[in-house]
Amino acid sequence: MASLNEPLIGVPGGRAKLQTPALVIDLDAFERNLAAMVAHAKRVGIGLRPHAKTHKSAEIARRQIAAGANGICCAKLGEAEALAAQGIDSILLTSPVVTDAGIARLMTLNARIGELIVVTDNAIVAARLDAAAQAAGTVLKVLVDIDPGMSRTGIRAALAPALVAQVAEAGGLAYLGLQCYAGQVQHMESPNERRDASLKALKELGELRDTLAKAGHAPKILSGGGTGTFDIDPDARVLTELQVGSYIFMDKQYNDVWEKPGDRLPFETSLYVQSTVISANRPGLATTDAGLKSFATDAGPPFLKSGAPEGAVYFFFGDEQGGITYPRDGAQLQPGDVVSCVVPHCDPTVNLYDRYHCVRGDTLEAIWSVDGRGRSA
Amino acid sequence: MASLNEPLIGVPGGRAKLQTPALVIDLDAFERNLAAMVAHAKRVGIGLRPHAKTHKSAEIARRQIAAGANGICCAKLGEAEALAAQGIDSILLTSPVVTDAGIARLMTLNARIGELIVVTDNAIVAARLDAAAQAAGTVLKVLVDIDPGMSRTGIRAALAPALVAQVAEAGGLAYLGLQCYAGQVQHMESPNERRDASLKALKELGELRDTLAKAGHAPKILSGGGTGTFDIDPDARVLTELQVGSYIFMDKQYNDVWEKPGDRLPFETSLYVQSTVISANRPGLATTDAGLKSFATDAGPPFLKSGAPEGAVYFFFGDEQGGITYPRDGAQLQPGDVVSCVVPHCDPTVNLYDRYHCVRGDTLEAIWSVDGRGRSA
Repeated sequence: MASLNEPLIGVPGGRAKLQTPALVIDLDAFERNLAAMVAHAKRVGIGLRPHAKTHKSAEIARRQIAAGANGICCAKLGEAEALAAQGIDSILLTSPVVTDAGIARLMTLNARIGELIVVTDNAIVAARLDAAAQAAGTVLKVLVDIDPGMSRTGIRAALAPALVAQVAEAGGLAYLGLQCYAGQVQHMESPNERRDASLKALKELGELRDTLAKAGHAPKILSGGGTGTFDIDPDARVLTELQVGSYIFMDKQYNDVWEKPGDRLPFETSLYVQSTVISANRPGLATTDAGLKSFATDAGPPFLKSGAPEGAVYFFFGDEQGGITYPRDGAQLQPGDVVSCVVPHCDPTVNLYDRYHCVRGDTLEAIWSVDGRGRSA
Repeated sequence: MASLNEPLIGVPGGRAKLQTPALVIDLDAFERNLAAMVAHAKRVGIGLRPHAKTHKSAEIARRQIAAGANGICCAKLGEAEALAAQGIDSILLTSPVVTDAGIARLMTLNARIGELIVVTDNAIVAARLDAAAQAAGTVLKVLVDIDPGMSRTGIRAALAPALVAQVAEAGGLAYLGLQCYAGQVQHMESPNERRDASLKALKELGELRDTLAKAGHAPKILSGGGTGTFDIDPDARVLTELQVGSYIFMDKQYNDVWEKPGDRLPFETSLYVQSTVISANRPGLATTDAGLKSFATDAGPPFLKSGAPEGAVYFFFGDEQGGITYPRDGAQLQPGDVVSCVVPHCDPTVNLYDRYHCVRGDTLEAIWSVDGRGRSA
């Protein structure tokens, strides 16, 4: 269905009139974030393959690719299919696909777009990928996924050479290199601990790279890293590209990681949930239209950015509503008042919405689709 | 887009082959829950207006109405519009609508369906509803929303008679009665505390009812209650109907409320998220395809119902993945293995999915749309 807010595009002051809850991108901040990461990557000499699991948007992926990215990452097959359907032509699928039905869909997607790269961390699954590709008369590009120590996905480095050899020798697979994403490191709040942990994982990856090179399997691509380590990982000179995602939006969680003395973070918050007060019958308490269905809650409550009195704090007030507590003795919020919230965790919050409302100043400039919303299968 | 799993409908053993993560309804349990609430309501002599914020599905709403409900509740205008578009003809919208754009949409919806009832807790908003209805040459049915003490929405009982009088005398509004939903009571784990708190709120509501009756404004409808108090509230003889929602699914949160000695709960779990193991490279640890984007997390992790070894525990393993820890010395999970999870909190979890996969035994019998998914505005 069409957006309720479409008639507001280009109307002066339209931002304040959005029907809410609405996911909002501040385009000025967003564009600065996009440019800052490109400038950083150029400066340190590393490639970018931004992760679309954050934004799930073909429009944003196009902008990232136009700015020089090697392609984009997708977390799930359905997400990749959704972005491919909107013209995104170069996708690294960062999670293993292991079922027969999933592998069949991989083959369809592989035939459809310019470049699909998949990952594997298991010899049996790799053999099935090979068989499917051979049966389809095609070749599937593969990175071997390396466990950086968190054991979410990836094979341990010690066992990787055998799997790499299997992939490299498989007739239906094209071995391109390694993926190693240290997810456990990204949100460590101490910059020093984050640096040490990330560089340790990358040192081991570098040793594996050298071992593989001696066996004739030098990786062409080494893909990994995230927004939490974007300025750390290049120092290790191991990764060829960064899978950064959240830098375009900078949620409360990443802001908390970075807001430490001495940090010089080139990214700023560009993503908000705009919400409206629907009830205000007690002094110092207001109820908004954005609750548990409008924010992912794994990183706590959102941060009230604007529209609420100073000192106001948001709390979750059930599935459908948020609460705002604030001083009882100043100006009081009224039904219809509009507030803007920094989202606690961008990726799963974006996944709750069908569209972005892109604003510049007080004007709604465009509405972009969250093409991969809900495509977790 | 069509469901990936459509070809599995009616295929023997299709349940195990669902592409995942997939939201699954066990139809036998679901139908028993539906019938058990109807039987309960008949026995105690109370009406039902089940809350569609739980399921957001026109198919389920139709079944609830066919089983004798007075109509259904919706939490948000967009949810109501989505169900009305699928033929649901009697809707109580349980949250106040306060913006100009929202009130305009209310008028459109009111002209379109057989019965729309809205709530208000504010004199200024009520006057705007009246003006809009008069301008549209129509009459809008209204319940005055009473604060049961949690102050989320609703006017305090002491101030309600004036608002009731305003609504009753407004030319564009038809005063039907009161809404009072004690959301804070529903998940109290002590049955005695839950009973005392709910009956206390209803006693005050009964006093307000009597006061209003003396003023010539006897409420015809008194709507409230939930799954946590379905067998308590009728004892107060105040509510005319129950807004029960979760009873059809019974999530982990409500199971925890009810699984106390002496409880005789007539409802059972009927809702699951089915998930697939995608990586298993360490003994006693497996990674599934369902993470923070596949479960609402406000009520903790899901409960592993089947498919995993005894003693297995699920933990959130990032946006896209779940982790399962289990004994290292027994049978080990492998990529492709399928597990079934009881969802922690049904309403916001359902809101993550586009469709229900309705199974009977091992067979996928139907796929139902989550029509109101994401319609929080």
